[in-house]
Amino acid sequence: MPVGTQGTVKGISPAQLKEIGPQVILGNTYHLGLRPGDNLVAKLGGLHRFMGWDGPILTDSGGFQVFSLSSLRKITEEGVAFQSHLDGSRHFLSPERSMEIQRNLGSDIVMALDECPPGRCERPDLERSMARTTRWLKRCRDFELAPHQGLFAINQGGTHLDLRRRHLEEALELDAQTPFQGFAVGGLSVGEPKELMNATLTEFVRELPAERPRYLMGVGTPEDLLFGIQQGVDLFDCVLPSREARHGTLLTSRGRVRIKNARHREADQPADPDCGCYTCRTFSRAYLHHLFRAGELLAFTLNTIHNLSYTVGLTRAARLALLEGRFEAFAAATREGWATEEP
Amino acid sequence: MPVGTQGTVKGISPAQLKEIGPQVILGNTYHLGLRPGDNLVAKLGGLHRFMGWDGPILTDSGGFQVFSLSSLRKITEEGVAFQSHLDGSRHFLSPERSMEIQRNLGSDIVMALDECPPGRCERPDLERSMARTTRWLKRCRDFELAPHQGLFAINQGGTHLDLRRRHLEEALELDAQTPFQGFAVGGLSVGEPKELMNATLTEFVRELPAERPRYLMGVGTPEDLLFGIQQGVDLFDCVLPSREARHGTLLTSRGRVRIKNARHREADQPADPDCGCYTCRTFSRAYLHHLFRAGELLAFTLNTIHNLSYTVGLTRAARLALLEGRFEAFAAATREGWATEEP
Repeated sequence: MPVGTQGTVKGISPAQLKEIGPQVILGNTYHLGLRPGDNLVAKLGGLHRFMGWDGPILTDSGGFQVFSLSSLRKITEEGVAFQSHLDGSRHFLSPERSMEIQRNLGSDIVMALDECPPGRCERPDLERSMARTTRWLKRCRDFELAPHQGLFAINQGGTHLDLRRRHLEEALELDAQTPFQGFAVGGLSVGEPKELMNATLTEFVRELPAERPRYLMGVGTPEDLLFGIQQGVDLFDCVLPSREARHGTLLTSRGRVRIKNARHREADQPADPDCGCYTCRTFSRAYLHHLFRAGELLAFTLNTIHNLSYTVGLTRAARLALLEGRFEAFAAATREGWATEEP
Repeated sequence: MPVGTQGTVKGISPAQLKEIGPQVILGNTYHLGLRPGDNLVAKLGGLHRFMGWDGPILTDSGGFQVFSLSSLRKITEEGVAFQSHLDGSRHFLSPERSMEIQRNLGSDIVMALDECPPGRCERPDLERSMARTTRWLKRCRDFELAPHQGLFAINQGGTHLDLRRRHLEEALELDAQTPFQGFAVGGLSVGEPKELMNATLTEFVRELPAERPRYLMGVGTPEDLLFGIQQGVDLFDCVLPSREARHGTLLTSRGRVRIKNARHREADQPADPDCGCYTCRTFSRAYLHHLFRAGELLAFTLNTIHNLSYTVGLTRAARLALLEGRFEAFAAATREGWATEEP
């Protein structure tokens, strides 16, 4: 899922996004709730109509941004009091308010509000936080969403497998009464060593219900996507492909291309010779290099089109390889391509 | 002609530009000659291929930018020595070098190099400058361009009709030997009072050869376009529509809309209800207001798409009205629309 934080995937239009072809995009509850405000979005017909995107939208709960972007947070059992990063105004996010914002936005997939503990959290703090997240999950489930909306539960527990298992059991108890539409793994890729994250995924993802989508939140690089898919993950979101694009790094089948490097100044080939996106079909590296050096807005747009096309294409190819029973060969060939020297 | 200074019309892709539908776009010889360099563009197949635009391109001579952007200019009969505004490097622009750059870029319409006197220039200085421009025009004409390229002559003379007439006579003498493809009016809209510019156009444009395109350089606002067309001008270029777009001013059939104004915060209607561009078909003013306030790149793109569509559409409608013999009624109705209070 490309990330459309403020009601736009940065630098590209919905028409360009449609050609890129993601199945779902992500909108941020925290940002949209503050500006332009979820009531206004509802009044204007919901987020799909507001931003001109008729495909599925997932909204996060707003929790992660409250914990990472806002200031003066006070957490109680009721919810989180915080100050807006935009203007310092005071707000309160509770499970019910998160559901209300997401109902107003009218997204298709709604994420339950979880407390987001920091990456290196002591075990007792983590356990207290997870117990609260379970109580909040019940409150989210009891909130009436629109008929087309489905709620996902979020599993926490850092890299502690036993905590994740206990947390999942609690969610499955609630699930037995009213089923969730999917399950997400939160609290990874937040500063812990990569090997610990990967070990956790290797053990844990398979334990999530197989018949419902498994969503690994805030991940990641092409390497992380491939690893996650290999463990059974179905959904990802990450700002990395679009952020890297704006910084001039192109993700390609032959590894990363830093477009501002002098070696691309006269290069007549496309960013990625294996890519069929608008950018690669139309422009040379020399042109992308020129645009980036000249600080032209089109540099951000064309780089974003490529990086999102590459990332979405990678997951599409992985899915096909899985369906055709040749995933391991696909993964090995893909990793081999990445290991190429900067092309 | 939308202006693509650095090999891109700022903020939009060639595919978006194609949908907007201008007949010609403009590229800047000064900028492209300095970066990425005309030899590199030639090596990469010319400007059309480099920037992914397969429609006609007009390139200016570079003269105007040398006089307005660069520093340490020294003008001799041979040409102009100047320092790049990018890195202070020293360069020399002569009629032959201007033709060489434009041949390397491979544009379809090539502009002759003229000396650009300041807007409020004393008459004797202006006369000396114009005499040199005529000698430079001859040197431009004697330079061999590519077979597909056509050369336009530029008429100077500020708001002095007698000087413009004499200058035109000199050009027509050269034209009698080898015809130019078109004639441009330069040196207007450079700080002189608007009434003087308009009076000059009213008297002078009709004296330019009617069977060849008449190009009013660096103009202008929708009001200026309409006035120019009324006097017999065929071609315009101006950064105004795209620059205004980036500053949040939308040109519409009902006057200018400043999209960041609070009155548009909840406005569900399109920027211009009479416009069929992608922006107006897809998004509300409330969304454009939100994007602009949030500083999103897409604000620049969508506003630019609208302003260029509006401007190109205005000239297209004017042309149709002319062909159908109802131009005066069209012009009056258009001006009446603009006189509306900010909608």
